[in-house]
Amino acid sequence: MEKQMPYSTVLRPIALLTDFGHTDAFVGVLKGVILSIHPEARIVDLCHGVSHQDIGHGAHLLDISLDYFPRGTIFCAVVDPGVGTNRRAVLVETRDYFLVGPDNGVLWPAASGNNIRRVIHLTRSRYFLARVSATFHGRDIFAPVAAHLSAGIDPGAFGPEVSDLTRFAFPEPEPFENGLILSIRHIDTFGNIGLNLTLEQFMPFAEQGFVMRINQTTINRHYDTYAAAPDKTFFVIGDSAGFVEIAVKKGHAASQLDIDKQDTGVTVTIEPCSDFKKG
Amino acid sequence: MEKQMPYSTVLRPIALLTDFGHTDAFVGVLKGVILSIHPEARIVDLCHGVSHQDIGHGAHLLDISLDYFPRGTIFCAVVDPGVGTNRRAVLVETRDYFLVGPDNGVLWPAASGNNIRRVIHLTRSRYFLARVSATFHGRDIFAPVAAHLSAGIDPGAFGPEVSDLTRFAFPEPEPFENGLILSIRHIDTFGNIGLNLTLEQFMPFAEQGFVMRINQTTINRHYDTYAAAPDKTFFVIGDSAGFVEIAVKKGHAASQLDIDKQDTGVTVTIEPCSDFKKG
Amino acid sequence: MEKQMPYSTVLRPIALLTDFGHTDAFVGVLKGVILSIHPEARIVDLCHGVSHQDIGHGAHLLDISLDYFPRGTIFCAVVDPGVGTNRRAVLVETRDYFLVGPDNGVLWPAASGNNIRRVIHLTRSRYFLARVSATFHGRDIFAPVAAHLSAGIDPGAFGPEVSDLTRFAFPEPEPFENGLILSIRHIDTFGNIGLNLTLEQFMPFAEQGFVMRINQTTINRHYDTYAAAPDKTFFVIGDSAGFVEIAVKKGHAASQLDIDKQDTGVTVTIEPCSDFKKG
Repeated sequence: MEKQMPYSTVLRPIALLTDFGHTDAFVGVLKGVILSIHPEARIVDLCHGVSHQDIGHGAHLLDISLDYFPRGTIFCAVVDPGVGTNRRAVLVETRDYFLVGPDNGVLWPAASGNNIRRVIHLTRSRYFLARVSATFHGRDIFAPVAAHLSAGIDPGAFGPEVSDLTRFAFPEPEPFENGLILSIRHIDTFGNIGLNLTLEQFMPFAEQGFVMRINQTTINRHYDTYAAAPDKTFFVIGDSAGFVEIAVKKGHAASQLDIDKQDTGVTVTIEPCSDFKKG
Repeated sequence: MEKQMPYSTVLRPIALLTDFGHTDAFVGVLKGVILSIHPEARIVDLCHGVSHQDIGHGAHLLDISLDYFPRGTIFCAVVDPGVGTNRRAVLVETRDYFLVGPDNGVLWPAASGNNIRRVIHLTRSRYFLARVSATFHGRDIFAPVAAHLSAGIDPGAFGPEVSDLTRFAFPEPEPFENGLILSIRHIDTFGNIGLNLTLEQFMPFAEQGFVMRINQTTINRHYDTYAAAPDKTFFVIGDSAGFVEIAVKKGHAASQLDIDKQDTGVTVTIEPCSDFKKG
Repeated sequence: MEKQMPYSTVLRPIALLTDFGHTDAFVGVLKGVILSIHPEARIVDLCHGVSHQDIGHGAHLLDISLDYFPRGTIFCAVVDPGVGTNRRAVLVETRDYFLVGPDNGVLWPAASGNNIRRVIHLTRSRYFLARVSATFHGRDIFAPVAAHLSAGIDPGAFGPEVSDLTRFAFPEPEPFENGLILSIRHIDTFGNIGLNLTLEQFMPFAEQGFVMRINQTTINRHYDTYAAAPDKTFFVIGDSAGFVEIAVKKGHAASQLDIDKQDTGVTVTIEPCSDFKKG
């Protein structure tokens, strides 16, 4: 991505990522708060469809999206099951971006992948709404801080620098006989099942042929495009973020396999199998 | 909220509230109409997930969101089951805001809570689209008026001032033995069930201990934060708008209680009960 | 619509139409890409709820929305089942607008209705992202081209002019005894069933009285507004885009008739029947 633009406040759009959905006014209220503080703020919806209180899903979406935004973007990520407890509210400054949100791991993969410069503990209540509730820090703390930051307030003004940030690690593939045990990172709106297998990790399997098993279903086809695949058949494909996913053309892989996002009992494995080399 | 900004047209964002959902182009068309009239308009989505034709739901979302928007915001609220009848189209100017929409009650709670200055009956068709349909006044009347208003047209130009505005009252709690009969205001995306009980009205019950009954289920726990509550257990909590709601941590209260938004046969009561004081 | 505004780059909002839904970050990433290239771009969501990979649905929404946008708007339409194949990526310049997307028919009804001036085959990769994936040309090609175009790049810079554009025709009503066989264009969020019958084509039936049959259900009522119709009864009404739809007041016609968007086995007919003249 091009990042040659000068790094000034006019180039600090605010990108919102939440699990608030679209049937309530929560997201709208965040925007009202931001515009009340900084009427010229440029607000972008990154996504509000994070699975409810699913830190891993939020962390994943933030991580795969970050690089596509202009330098100076302020990401305000509100997936916050610990709201009202003593989990910290933080602002992370990285090489190219700012990330504002709860310190529960949701910021970690994106922040750590972009060189963390400093972590600020958000303590200066003069930058919060006057009344901070126990249940909606997105409105009362994170949106106000993002707005002030977009208006040019220095990151250091929001509180003291701290030396740590809560980590979140997606599970890595685990060895299994001569293959790997995989896990599901996310399921997208098309029903594609995103796995924790990078294209690089998949390469040797793709070259030798492979058998992937998900619950009782066996998959051994691999295509580079949806269009190349036959209809109504499970196959694996590289997704647009560099990972492998399970897909069905003119179908919905997740519902055909009876898998949903909350499902934790799914077993996915991949093993080499030279019977099924890519044709 | 800070409202110290000068009150000029550049500070008049247009906030859209509708029951149009996100699977059609209705909302997009509103925005196209607005930008056709005022290319510099600043459009914000407040919410498009109002339950279909549910004036009370729209009124509630508008009412709890208003104060978080900057002074001068134009709210364009289109929940309009009476479109095409002789219900009036109105513009309400309040102390801090403008509200545009059908005169069916949807504007009342928000407008009356912010000091109504004048109510304009929208009659000047020069500010509408050239062809006004019988089914989509959001596109043909309300969005155009909001756009012209954001561009600086004086409210008085849109039609004659009238002396009344259709009222809408949320039901108040009713006395019941030594407690109250409550009703459901709304159900949010997390499954939390919002009641018509303010935190102030709830205070004496919270202090003495209470039993709430919803259909056959009994609830006697009260927490200040979601995080403090045990998993998978019904409890009551103050919501971010000053009302009491029924929630379940790591659950979905409404579906677990088999209640949906349209449900009118639900009975909710609260009574004092000193057996269940907050621990 | 008013189109008197001068035709300059500041008046080129980018309107996004996709089948990406709202539960992933795909739409957010498109916006990040656009703002990375053109930080001042004015981005509008037309709709992201196109049925998955349904070119006809996308074409319909684009077609009925186009005219409501300001002159110079850049429509970026990404409904792209053939992504990664050799289907062309194109930019269509029409009398009033620019349309960017895959050349699979999705652009045709809107473009051909607004006088096509030239069709550019998008081949100049300097205007794409540096790495073009095989699965997400919305991000890698269409959004970048729309962004550069909004920043003032001349359409001719994106590739060679070509002489054809893939056509897409909605099915026309077919003769049937003394009436017509109709088909379903789309189902909206309210459950209204949009037919391929224009108000003009419906006029003689409306005047003489008619019987419409959809699967086993008979409909003979016609109202000009939802409000005029009785509750819970099927009727036909002109929609806001000039077509006829089947509706139920305080109901959801599609689910009551057990019809969904993917359903292809539905039979709809209309015949004159003087027993049922409009009252």
